[in-house]
Formats: sequence, structure tokens, C-alpha cells
Amino acid sequence: MGKDLSQIIRNKAFLDKVVSAEEAASWIEDGMNLGMSGFTLFGEPKEFPLALSKRGENEKFKVNLYTGASLGPTADQSMAEAGIINLRVPYQGNAVMRNKINAGELFYIDQHLSHTAEEVRKGTLGKIDYAIIEAAAITEDGLIIPTGSVGNSPIFVEKAENVIIEINTTAPSAYEGLHDIYVLKEQGERREIPIYSVGDRIGEIGIKVDPAKVKGIVLSEQPDIPSPLFEPNEETQQIADNLLEFFANEVKEGRLSNSLAPLQSGVGSVANAVLNGMKTSQFKDIEVASEVLQDGVFDLIDAGVVKFAVGTAFSLSKKRVESLAEDLEKYKGKIMFRPQEISNHPEVIRRLGVISFNTALEVDIYGNVNSTHVSGTRVMNGIGGSGDFARNARITIFVTPSLAKNGAISAIVPFVSHADHTEHDVDVIVTEQGYADLRGLPPVKRAEKLIEIAHPSYRPQLRAYFEEAKEKVGGHTPHILEKAFSFHTNLKEKGTMLLEEEKINN
Amino acid sequence: MGKDLSQIIRNKAFLDKVVSAEEAASWIEDGMNLGMSGFTLFGEPKEFPLALSKRGENEKFKVNLYTGASLGPTADQSMAEAGIINLRVPYQGNAVMRNKINAGELFYIDQHLSHTAEEVRKGTLGKIDYAIIEAAAITEDGLIIPTGSVGNSPIFVEKAENVIIEINTTAPSAYEGLHDIYVLKEQGERREIPIYSVGDRIGEIGIKVDPAKVKGIVLSEQPDIPSPLFEPNEETQQIADNLLEFFANEVKEGRLSNSLAPLQSGVGSVANAVLNGMKTSQFKDIEVASEVLQDGVFDLIDAGVVKFAVGTAFSLSKKRVESLAEDLEKYKGKIMFRPQEISNHPEVIRRLGVISFNTALEVDIYGNVNSTHVSGTRVMNGIGGSGDFARNARITIFVTPSLAKNGAISAIVPFVSHADHTEHDVDVIVTEQGYADLRGLPPVKRAEKLIEIAHPSYRPQLRAYFEEAKEKVGGHTPHILEKAFSFHTNLKEKGTMLLEEEKINN
Repeated sequence: MGKDLSQIIRNKAFLDKVVSAEEAASWIEDGMNLGMSGFTLFGEPKEFPLALSKRGENEKFKVNLYTGASLGPTADQSMAEAGIINLRVPYQGNAVMRNKINAGELFYIDQHLSHTAEEVRKGTLGKIDYAIIEAAAITEDGLIIPTGSVGNSPIFVEKAENVIIEINTTAPSAYEGLHDIYVLKEQGERREIPIYSVGDRIGEIGIKVDPAKVKGIVLSEQPDIPSPLFEPNEETQQIADNLLEFFANEVKEGRLSNSLAPLQSGVGSVANAVLNGMKTSQFKDIEVASEVLQDGVFDLIDAGVVKFAVGTAFSLSKKRVESLAEDLEKYKGKIMFRPQEISNHPEVIRRLGVISFNTALEVDIYGNVNSTHVSGTRVMNGIGGSGDFARNARITIFVTPSLAKNGAISAIVPFVSHADHTEHDVDVIVTEQGYADLRGLPPVKRAEKLIEIAHPSYRPQLRAYFEEAKEKVGGHTPHILEKAFSFHTNLKEKGTMLLEEEKINN
Repeated sequence: MGKDLSQIIRNKAFLDKVVSAEEAASWIEDGMNLGMSGFTLFGEPKEFPLALSKRGENEKFKVNLYTGASLGPTADQSMAEAGIINLRVPYQGNAVMRNKINAGELFYIDQHLSHTAEEVRKGTLGKIDYAIIEAAAITEDGLIIPTGSVGNSPIFVEKAENVIIEINTTAPSAYEGLHDIYVLKEQGERREIPIYSVGDRIGEIGIKVDPAKVKGIVLSEQPDIPSPLFEPNEETQQIADNLLEFFANEVKEGRLSNSLAPLQSGVGSVANAVLNGMKTSQFKDIEVASEVLQDGVFDLIDAGVVKFAVGTAFSLSKKRVESLAEDLEKYKGKIMFRPQEISNHPEVIRRLGVISFNTALEVDIYGNVNSTHVSGTRVMNGIGGSGDFARNARITIFVTPSLAKNGAISAIVPFVSHADHTEHDVDVIVTEQGYADLRGLPPVKRAEKLIEIAHPSYRPQLRAYFEEAKEKVGGHTPHILEKAFSFHTNLKEKGTMLLEEEKINN
């Protein structure tokens, strides 16, 4: 392994607990609740879920799998393929698992990422039979040092009857010191979360665990799992430019300074394009108070634009995964990971006045946002932390290209086929066509703005719907319920949301 | 007036500012933003809005009216009738105003009640030209003592260019000491809200104001405005019983004690029936951490069930309005009013672990809740504080009778015609048919539970929709978008949501 295990497992009470992944997997019984580390493919155990999946090939059992967020091929995918998951909470993003969920083969609760720890604490998800946590080390004091995410690991470890630690012997030792582990007490018994500025360190460098609960330690040499690198293209670049124009206007109006406010950005191509665009913008001395730190954040630190970044997990491209060991040294003191219930906590987001931008799947003409369901039925990934931030942010922004599927789908529709963020929660929508600032506007005025940032090919039929709804039905939020999903049903029947000319004019 | 004005206006800097309501109303110019006290008909100025409305009969001007929440006949209604309101924020509940909003004659932003103060602070609702605040007194130190609500008055006074104080000379002097006024600093510059248990007093007894900003003091003798008394009937009693059964089961399961957790209840007949039912229940030593305190809360204090109650406003029946002066003395030290951004603040709600129950207009089979819009278009009142509590509560409960309009409307529908609270935010639904505990359940299992608490006459057609959606479309959240609003369109066409037999079986 190249490393002396006693340098990694530095507390002797743990050293004699090493077992094979197969043995650890053999302890799991049908119906158990597993709390597993892992968030956006980082920090998840790998040998354990592979061994458990392998067991599933010959044995009939199912478990409920609770995590931080999305796991990768060795966990979510292999376990879904093995058919050993009954219920998955609170987020996933794996194509194999998604298809099984949509086929009704496994159950899924799509939950606000700040809520899961509270649910575990209250017992509404049942007891945690096993916590399975990937770790970079165990300290002399017996603290578990997580790897590239914190997620829900602290609450899983606290509440679990048994703990399995998967030591990743390839994990950079510089993970130690990256984390800020703060554990909340029961509701009604807790104090404030003492974060008053983004970089305040409030917790410990690792997760406390009762050694008596640690049933086994599994060793792994499996490397971190990269995510696709999202290079900006013309469209995402235009969305980014529009968002930066909105920010610039806020500065001009005196509502923000050039250091903006602590910034949260969703994961994906648009977010990366925005971060990329900031490198050469007027904005500087920015603090990032996010959920996931992507490549772009490092680039912005390099460019001197971002001065500090907190989150709960990495999501990195292959290039950044390869340089992670040196990057952790390089960015020491400039990045920090907290448990997801802290990074996403309404108390912290509201106090700091975070600016939030996340990706929408579709948006309706009154500003309701669908983040999760294609045509209202098939779940994509999940709401993730977008709701935690959207509801409590200083400015809540959603971004989306105005078209999808080569123009067959309009992101702006009359009525969202699933509402994840309601009209009460949404401030600004950005497409490549421009931005719609909905703040201070009643529904009918929001519609005017939103139709203007739809793709030009869809504007006439959106306007036709809106005008007909105002004229024939009226009301505070004019809708013709018979036609509210006409875009979606047309897509299903004819393969496009583009209605025929005569239908538009009916 | 019976009282010596210098006993009420105890700071000399204010005494010579008394003007007539007509004069104060004459200062208002077309396009101005007015921040007015008042919440659920309590604590609103009366002479000033009447005078302003009177001015509107002969003069053409419009103002934007921001308040705490709903105002009564002398304010919302008279101003709506006079046609002098352009934009109303963040809540209303007056029939005349509602009709004007739905007719498109005045604009309305239906906003989370904890958000308005932040919007004013950030400047996204424009500057406040005039704050108009009803007061019981002005202290020697120049603090404005509010009357029966706090609402958004502190932020209006802080940010307004000019302040008009309407002294209600009939207000009980015991209002002094009821209020706990805590003002938040800008986001990014503030500390925690130091409330760790419901009764913690954190602020001042009145609202600080720069005397130089106080342009006039208007005198009023108009009494407080009562709300209808909601006597329990068989249906609301059954809903209350079902909710209390849910609570009893939580105690049995060890998730709650008999003192429950701090309780928030919406306004109205079901809430009052629940409070009424608690008088003879197993629950005791309850703390109320709510938005509005209704008659029922006093009765529970009398019964020794509630030991302390905080909110931001009263909503009282005629009987309780009449005894208010003595009640304020009697319940001194047992009730407290805070600004609505504090009573409804996610930080406080989440920390204390408040149990929230509010009324739903309709609920869909997957647990999405409509609180605001009839058939998706006509707004009723607004979301109020329900979203502030629902998102952050320890347990989020919505209550509704399963039927409305003599059976023509089912409260459980395939797809909500407006989403105010999403599937991610809703824990328990209660009707007179029973309760559906949705916690820890994926969408298709929630549907099973929710169909069971629909009225029996609607269960077959709900089940038919659900089964067809599962079979023909599938997905994580099965829907047939063509039929998603079939209940609503049937109601529009035939006057009932009850579909024909043949349609059900299609």
C-alpha cells in the first residue's frame, strides 16, 4: 500500500478492527437502514458497496440507503444494478438508478439536503443500523477524517448502532484540516450556529465516534471519481454573460458591491461558465458559500477573484482529481467543508445573505420552477440543496437555456409540470436570451418579463396562452387549465412543444 | 377623549406634531410607497386610511401599500374601494380587495411574511416614503408602543423617509410591555437572533424612531376590529380529533412528549377547533410559537394547558376584543408579540423545532399543497406565513375538510392547480376522514395514504387516475398531464368535480 497503516489509523483502539469488505458486507441484513458518506461522487465508500452488491447477486435482501447526495458507479450504480435498494434518500444522479426509480423498481425520497439530518435526528427515517464512512485517517483522538465530502456523515455516525469505516489509503493526508465538523443538538436544546462570516471555523477537524460502535474498518485504494468537465459553449457563455450583467446592474443600483455577497452556485455547465466568466469581470474579493465546489472555484482562487470558499463536497474534473493532493496543500486555509445541514442551513444562508444560482429544468410564465421532473413524471436527479438556498437567499436566481432537445422543448412553459420552487421563492430567471428580474412584480408582470427571455420561436405561443388566459379566465394568476399542459402534451404526441399555427390562434 | 394626551404621548418632542387625519393624508403623493402597521385586522391605523380614501374620491392618485398582513374595512377595503392602490404587498384577506385583485384592477404580490422586511431592507420594494403606524403610546424615551400587532412596523419606521403615528387613545395602556421589538441588521453584518426558548425576551418594548422623521401624529378613537368567532362544528371537530390522534401517536412512539413542541397554528375554524380540543386532551405545558394568537390560545392559558404564547398579532372575536383591556393585564407575562420577521424567521423556527399546522385549499395525491388559488387563477388571501413555518418546522401539517361547496369540490385532487408548498415540504395531511402521515414515504406511497383520507365519494376517481397514471405513464411521480386538471375542468363545466361513471372507467 505504500503507506504505513499506523500513520493513517493513529488511534490503537481502531487498528485491530480491519476486516475485508466482504466480511463487513456480510453483516448487513435485509431491511436495514444504511447511512453512507458521499456527495457528488466524492467521499463515498467504494469497496464496501461493491462487496454488498456482489452479495446481492446470490442473495435476496434489500436495504434503505441514505447518503449525503449522489454516489457514483461503485455505490449507487452497482447497488441499483444488484437490485438491493428498497428506498433511496435524499438525492441521486446516476442514470442506472434513475431508470430504476422511474420504472418503479426502487423507491426514492427527493428531499431538501438540509432536512435529512433533522429527519434522522427525529427518527422519522427509522434508526440507522450501519453508518459506512469513507475516511482519510483516524486521528490519535479517534476522530474520523473524511475525504472529499462531509455530507451527512456526522449525523449518521452519531445515530448509527454500528459504524464501518472505509479507509482510503490513497487519500491525500492534506484532507486533515479541510473539514469543520459542527454537530447540532436536538431541536429545542440547541444554540445558534455561530457562523457570522463565511470563513468562521466553528467545529472540529473530524467526526467524533464512540470506538465501541466501530464494528470494522475496510481498506480501499480506489481513487476519487471525477465528474465531466463542463467547458463553456456559446450558449452557456451567453447565459453567464447575462447573469454577470444582472450582477453589474445590482452594483450600479447600489444594492451590491463588487465583492457581491457570499455566492452559492449549482453544479453543471452554466454554473461553470458563470464562474469562468467571473475571472475577467469587475467582481473581486468574492466569498463562496456553496454546497459543492467545482473546478471553477479553484480557477477563481488562482485568478485572485475568490478569497475563500466553503461547501460540503467537491465535484471535480479528471484534471483536478489528479492534482488534488497538491491542490489541497495549495488552497489550504482558503477552502473548508462543513456538514451539509450547516452549509445549507437556512439560519446561515439568511444571516450571511447568500446569493444563490441554480439550474432550472423548466420555468412557468409566473416564475414557478421545476428542478426535478421531466414532463411531471420522470425524476431526473432531485431538488438537492437548491431549495435550501432558494428560499433563504438574498437573491434567488435560476438559470436555464431557453431550449432543449434541439428546440423541441421550451424551458419557459405556461404551467410547470412539477413545482419545486414556487412563485414566492424565485427572484431572477436567466436564459441565453436575457434575464428576467421578477422582484417586486405581481404575476402578470412577471409573465411579460419571462416571455421575453423565452426562445423567440416559443414567444408567440406563450403570449397567445397568456393573452387568452387573461381574457377568458382572468384572475390574479390567469390560467386556462385545459391548455396549461398543452406544450407538454404536444411534445408527447408530436415530438415538439411547438404548437401548430392554427392551434396558437384558436 | 377621557385621557390626558400627555399621559399617552409622554415625550415632548412629539406632542406638538398632532395634525388632523386629513392633513396627514394630504402629504401623500401619487406613486408613493406606504408602509403601514396592521396584521389580521389588529394594529392598523384607521383615521389615516379613511382620510386618504376620502381624498381618493376627488383626486386621481395611487400608492403602493405594504403592511404586516391583512387590514380591515377602514384600510384595505376603503382604499380598494377608492381605487387608490396600485400594488399591495404581502398579504390581504378582504373580499372587496380580493375581487379587485382578481379583476386585474390592482396588483398584488403574495409574499412569505418573513421575507417582506428583508425586501424592504434590500431596497427591492423601493424606498418607503411614509410609515403609518398605529400606536398605544409614545414613551418618555420616544419609543412607539404598538397596539395589537407588530408586523413589519419596525422595518417600515427604520427605513421610511417620513413617519406618521396614529395614536389610538382607546388602546389599553397594558399594551406597554407586550411587545419584544428586535431589529435585524443588514445581511452579512448581523449576529444570531438570540432566542433559545420561546419566551426569551430579546428586544425593546417599543419601536425606536428618529423624532425628526415623525411628520405628524393623528389621533383616533376607533376600536379594534374583531374577526368572526369560529365555533367548532362536527366536521372541524373531527379534523381536530384526527390531528390530536396524530399527536398522541407521536407521543406513543417516543418522538414527542405531552408538552409536544412549540406550536404554530394557522387562523380559522379548524385551528380553533384543534385548540379547543386540546383543553381536554393529554397535552399540557404547551408553548405556542405562532404568528397569530386567536381566542383559543387565551382559553388554553385559562385551562392551564398553554404556559406561554408568542406571535406577531391578535385575531380576536368580538367577545375577546371587548375584554382585551383586562385580558392584557390578566395574561401579562404569558403572551408576547415580536416583529413578523422574527416570529416567522427560519432560524428561530428551525432551532426551536416548531410544529406547524395550517389550512390547505387543496392537496394533490403526492402531497403538494395549494394555499392560495381557487382553480389556479383566483387568489383567495395569500400564502401568509404558512411557508415560513412549513419549510422549517419540526413537523409540517396541513388541515382541510375533504369536501367544499356541498361536495362539488374535493380537497384532494390529482394535481394542485397552484403549488405553494411542494412535496418536499409537507409531512402530514389531516381531513375529517383521518390523517395521512407522509414522512419517509416516496410519492406513490404518499398517494395511497392521501386517497384514503379523501372523501369516499371521490376516492374511486382519484384511484382511477392514480392507477391509470402508473400503468400508462409510470415514472417516479406518475401523472397523465392531459387529465391532471380533469377535476377542475369538470367543476368549471358541470359545477362539480365528480366525474361521470363512464369517464372514471375510461
